[in-house]
Amino acid sequence: MTLKYAIIGAGALGGYYGGRLAQAGSDVHFLFNTDYTYVCDNGFRVDSVSGNFHLSKLNAYNSTSAMPVCDVVLVCLKTTNNHLLPELLKPILHANTLVVLVQNGLGLEESLERHLPDIQLAGGLAFICSNKIGPGHIRHLDLGKLVLGAHKMNQPEVLQQVCRDFQQAGVPCQMSDDLYFSRWQKLVWNVPFNGLTVVLNTTTDRIMANHSSRELAFELMLEVVAAANQCGVKLEESFARKMLDMTAGMTPYAPSMKLDFDFKRPMEIEAIYSNPVSKAAEAGFAMKQVAMLEKQLRFIQAQLA
Amino acid sequence: MTLKYAIIGAGALGGYYGGRLAQAGSDVHFLFNTDYTYVCDNGFRVDSVSGNFHLSKLNAYNSTSAMPVCDVVLVCLKTTNNHLLPELLKPILHANTLVVLVQNGLGLEESLERHLPDIQLAGGLAFICSNKIGPGHIRHLDLGKLVLGAHKMNQPEVLQQVCRDFQQAGVPCQMSDDLYFSRWQKLVWNVPFNGLTVVLNTTTDRIMANHSSRELAFELMLEVVAAANQCGVKLEESFARKMLDMTAGMTPYAPSMKLDFDFKRPMEIEAIYSNPVSKAAEAGFAMKQVAMLEKQLRFIQAQLA
Repeated sequence: MTLKYAIIGAGALGGYYGGRLAQAGSDVHFLFNTDYTYVCDNGFRVDSVSGNFHLSKLNAYNSTSAMPVCDVVLVCLKTTNNHLLPELLKPILHANTLVVLVQNGLGLEESLERHLPDIQLAGGLAFICSNKIGPGHIRHLDLGKLVLGAHKMNQPEVLQQVCRDFQQAGVPCQMSDDLYFSRWQKLVWNVPFNGLTVVLNTTTDRIMANHSSRELAFELMLEVVAAANQCGVKLEESFARKMLDMTAGMTPYAPSMKLDFDFKRPMEIEAIYSNPVSKAAEAGFAMKQVAMLEKQLRFIQAQLA
Repeated sequence: MTLKYAIIGAGALGGYYGGRLAQAGSDVHFLFNTDYTYVCDNGFRVDSVSGNFHLSKLNAYNSTSAMPVCDVVLVCLKTTNNHLLPELLKPILHANTLVVLVQNGLGLEESLERHLPDIQLAGGLAFICSNKIGPGHIRHLDLGKLVLGAHKMNQPEVLQQVCRDFQQAGVPCQMSDDLYFSRWQKLVWNVPFNGLTVVLNTTTDRIMANHSSRELAFELMLEVVAAANQCGVKLEESFARKMLDMTAGMTPYAPSMKLDFDFKRPMEIEAIYSNPVSKAAEAGFAMKQVAMLEKQLRFIQAQLA
């Protein structure tokens, strides 16, 4: 099965993963925003710890209405742009197009489904350190694993093919049996470190080096674990400990939310904080500390505007 | 009864209140730190909404060992210096000297008592906006009420005389029947606004203008009220609402902790955050949000060093 791919948002994430697929010979169509003209003239460059590459010719577009209908759409936008998705997607969907939301947070598939109820939908979680460092220029610094899981699909073999295409393109890719488990699991790290690096205006290493902030990060992790369990997702507390130890061994890192803050861009507060807090509340669990971080972030976001 | 007063810490608070007593003719002895020489040469100036004054001659000292034994010691230091008190006080105490801790927070009297078990001890709460704006120069901007309450005293008439002396010096002063009630009550404002103005690097008006931060401030107030009640101090939730409304009507204000942060000085985290959190925990109540703010402040303090 040969799949035609659309990459919605060819930035740090979509540029890297879509670029790998294109480099490996897949039929990939990229939606660009501000970089469109630059990429048409100069191609697309990825500097990567797994090997650099340059795509001198690629299928670049500045509007989905100019793109072909595709079999798989990888949505790699910031979730803060998800309100644009229903309109963006319409021109490139056929009856069985699989849309994969490669994004952090909760409630994303449910939200899109409300607008496009008949859509084939999956989610993806990217474990990667990559940045856009210039127009049409991505730097991939570390890691790179992609985890894919079904939300609602008629043809599970399509997502399996996506996984194989990535593997053949040199991207470590695996299937998740339970997308929501994987989404909650990823929040165990994202909730403390995205928010605290913004509120405390710092990096992961400094949070880990201070007793109070390290303890707070761990408490936030445990609150995510407790909320997940209350929502029927069986996360273990030992996973939080493992994530904390992993962070202690990381090089100094500014998570994506910290970069958004630094560059005065919208932060993914809704997907990473508000939606988990709401879901936990529906299940009867008050995420007191995470909700406090959410409110602090909302204040900070308002001051950036 | 004529009382001989010592003012320990003649800054924004001690300079104003001690200055008022001296101006009204009380026998007041001031301990200065860095301003000692300046004040000896130039006297002491207070610009005040209640009337300016200048003390051209005052009893200034740079060490308590040079001071006379006094009947009343008003401690107006930052609580971050309270570890110095046992040594500082010894030279100026007679058998019945009354020490009044004019400071915010909890656990201050208990802590001093552990070092000086036989001391006569009271507490004070200052409802005042004043700043030190230069050597020997205080600016009193707004409010000014002083509330006094007993901790452990043989002679209650001494504290009553202190109250009268202040009233005669033009300072609105009243007695509290219950010092701990008054200390918890003051925390209802201090806990949210001291900490949040630091962590969010802002002023009270901006916290009040944003829905999320205003809600968070109110939640923190309610947590203080709940903790107080758990500790047997009967605060009402309506008081939190009253404090919130009062803050909405205030002019933009940077609380003392925000000024400490701005000038990279030690913040009063122990007295205003850690001690209430500990007392509530002893009473079986987890101040989750206040403890989170405490940890954020401890991180920020560590980065200032």
